[in-house]
Amino acid sequence: MEQKHVPPDLPPMKDLTTENITENVHIINSKCEDPRLRFLLERLVTHLHDFARETRLSIKEWEAAIKFLVEVGQISTDVRHEFVLLSDVLGLSLLVDAIDNPKLPNATEGTVLGPFHTSDAHHVSSGNQISRDPDGEPLFALCSVKDTQGRPIQGVSIDVWETDSKGFYDVQYSDREEPDGRAILESDENGVFFFKAIVPVPYPIPHDGPVGQLLERLKRHPYRPSHMHFMFKKEGYDRLITAFYLRGDPYESSDAVFGVKQSLIIDLHRVGDYPGLAEKYGVSLETKLLKQDFVLVTAEEAAKVREEDAWKEVKRQGGNLTVVNGLIVPAE
Amino acid sequence: MEQKHVPPDLPPMKDLTTENITENVHIINSKCEDPRLRFLLERLVTHLHDFARETRLSIKEWEAAIKFLVEVGQISTDVRHEFVLLSDVLGLSLLVDAIDNPKLPNATEGTVLGPFHTSDAHHVSSGNQISRDPDGEPLFALCSVKDTQGRPIQGVSIDVWETDSKGFYDVQYSDREEPDGRAILESDENGVFFFKAIVPVPYPIPHDGPVGQLLERLKRHPYRPSHMHFMFKKEGYDRLITAFYLRGDPYESSDAVFGVKQSLIIDLHRVGDYPGLAEKYGVSLETKLLKQDFVLVTAEEAAKVREEDAWKEVKRQGGNLTVVNGLIVPAE
Repeated sequence: MEQKHVPPDLPPMKDLTTENITENVHIINSKCEDPRLRFLLERLVTHLHDFARETRLSIKEWEAAIKFLVEVGQISTDVRHEFVLLSDVLGLSLLVDAIDNPKLPNATEGTVLGPFHTSDAHHVSSGNQISRDPDGEPLFALCSVKDTQGRPIQGVSIDVWETDSKGFYDVQYSDREEPDGRAILESDENGVFFFKAIVPVPYPIPHDGPVGQLLERLKRHPYRPSHMHFMFKKEGYDRLITAFYLRGDPYESSDAVFGVKQSLIIDLHRVGDYPGLAEKYGVSLETKLLKQDFVLVTAEEAAKVREEDAWKEVKRQGGNLTVVNGLIVPAE
Repeated sequence: MEQKHVPPDLPPMKDLTTENITENVHIINSKCEDPRLRFLLERLVTHLHDFARETRLSIKEWEAAIKFLVEVGQISTDVRHEFVLLSDVLGLSLLVDAIDNPKLPNATEGTVLGPFHTSDAHHVSSGNQISRDPDGEPLFALCSVKDTQGRPIQGVSIDVWETDSKGFYDVQYSDREEPDGRAILESDENGVFFFKAIVPVPYPIPHDGPVGQLLERLKRHPYRPSHMHFMFKKEGYDRLITAFYLRGDPYESSDAVFGVKQSLIIDLHRVGDYPGLAEKYGVSLETKLLKQDFVLVTAEEAAKVREEDAWKEVKRQGGNLTVVNGLIVPAE
C-alpha cells in the first residue's frame, strides 16, 4: 500500500468545473493497466456526467438516489437479488442478455435469467416431478435439445425453474427446507428430456422493497406473464438461458422485466392430443402438455458472432478502439 | 395495490432487441405522473443502455457490476457512506455540487460535502476548542461571513469538521463516545466566528471496502489533501458547503474526490503576524492562524442563477423541455 502515498505523475487537477471534470476523471483513471476496465470506466463516467449535466441533477435528487441505492444493497441477500431486479425493470438485463447472446438463425432465443435461479437444485432423471405443490395444474413437459443442423445433443445439463401455483419461487418462503419447483435434468441420446411440473402462472416480482416503490412511483405494475425458465449447458455449446411464455397471458405485452419474445410464446397442448403419450409416460390424457424443441449454437458459432458484432460497434463509434477476446478496448 | 393487476394501456412490448428496448422502457415509464422523475428516468435509461451498447457489456461484467453494487450497499452504515464515496471518486459529487451551487462573482466557491458530516456536532461559542486531539498542531481560526456587498451577516450557523492528527474523523473510531473534531458555531454582529482546532493533515478516504478496491484496480491513491470542512446556513441565504485546502499539500493536484479549487487553497499565517491577536484571544504567538472571510449569496440570487443555467441547458438540448421550479422537465 505504500506506493499509494506517491501522487501520480499526471497533469494538475484543480478548479474542476461542470465542463472539465469529466476529462479530469478520465486522466486520473488513465493509469489503470486493464484496458477493458479503463474503457468501461471512461464510458461509465462520460454517461454518468452527461446524465447529471443534461438533467442538471440537484443535490437533493442526488441524495435521494444515494439513499435508494443503499436501500437496494441492504435489502439484498443470497436469495433476494434487488440490484438484479433494478437492472431488470430498467431493461438493462434484457439488453445485456441480447448483446451477449446474439440471436442466431434457427437457434432458440435467450431471455433474462431473472433473480430466482439457484445453484442447489436437485439432479433428477427424466420423468420426475419437479414441483411438490398439490394446488398446481399438472403439466407434462416433453422436450428435446438439438444443434442448428437438427442433430440431437446428448448430455446437456438442463436447469428448469418455475413458481408454485401462488406465484412464488421456493426461495421466497422463509421456511424453505429444500429446493422445490426446480431441478436439473440431462438430455438422453435422442436429445430428449421430460418431466412433470405445474402450469406456470403470472406473478409479481418482489415489490415490497425499493424497486417495488420505484415501480409504484412510475405507475408500473410488477407482474411477469406466466413462464418457465430453462438453462442449457454443455461443453462446446454456448450457454442458453431462456424461458417460454404462455400465449394470451394478460401481461404478455407489459412484462415488468421486458423478457417476452415472440419466438418464446407458446401454446400448451393436451397429452391426449398425441396418441400413445399418456400410456408411455404414465400421465392422464387431460394433462397439459409442453412440447418444445430447443436449439443450441456451438460456443464457436456464438464467439464468432460476438466478435463480428463488437467490430460493428467499433466501426460505428469510429474512435480509436479495437477488439480483443471479443471485447472492445482502446487501441494502443 | 389491486389496480396494479390491470396491465397499462400501452403499445405491446415484445421482441425487444438491443435497438428497440430503450424506446420501450421509455414507453412503459411514460405513465409516471411526476414530470421531473419521468425526465430523470428517460435520461437515466438512455445513458445506461447507451453505455451497455457502446461497450457491448458482457453478462460476466454485468454480474461483476451487480456484485460490486451489492457490496457497496452492504458495507454502508449510518457513519460509513460507501455510495457517497463511489460518487466522489467518479467525480459525480463534485459535478452535482457545481451544478447545484453555481459560482457567483465575489462569493465563496462550494465544494464536495464528503461522507463525514454528521448531525450531532455540539453547538459551541466562539473561542472554544473543537479538537481534543493532543497530538495535533494547534490552529487558531479567525473567520467572518459576509454577503456579496461586503456586509457582515449575523446569526449564521457554521458547521466545521476536520480529522484528528492521524487523518481520521471521529466517526471512524468504533469507540466514538461523542463528537470530536467538529462543532457548530454562530457568527456575531460583525459576522465573526473563531475557534481553536488543529492543522489539517492529508488522509486517505476509507479504502478497505469495495470503493478502495476499485481505486486500487485503477492505480489511484485514496488520499485527500489537507483541508477543513465548513457548512454555512441561514434563512434567506443559499446553503454553502465548502472547505479550504492548504497550499503545497502533496495531494493538492490529485485529490481522490476532485474537491480542490484554486480559490479554496489558502496559506496559514502565524498568530504573531497580527499584533494584538495573541493577547486578545489568549493563544500563543507561534500558533498557526487561519484567517478567512466567507461570502454567502442570498437564496434569491442563487435561485435566479440556477433558473438561468437550467434554461441554458434546455436551449442547448433543443428538445421539448421546459423549466419548472428551477428544474428541467418535459414540456407538455
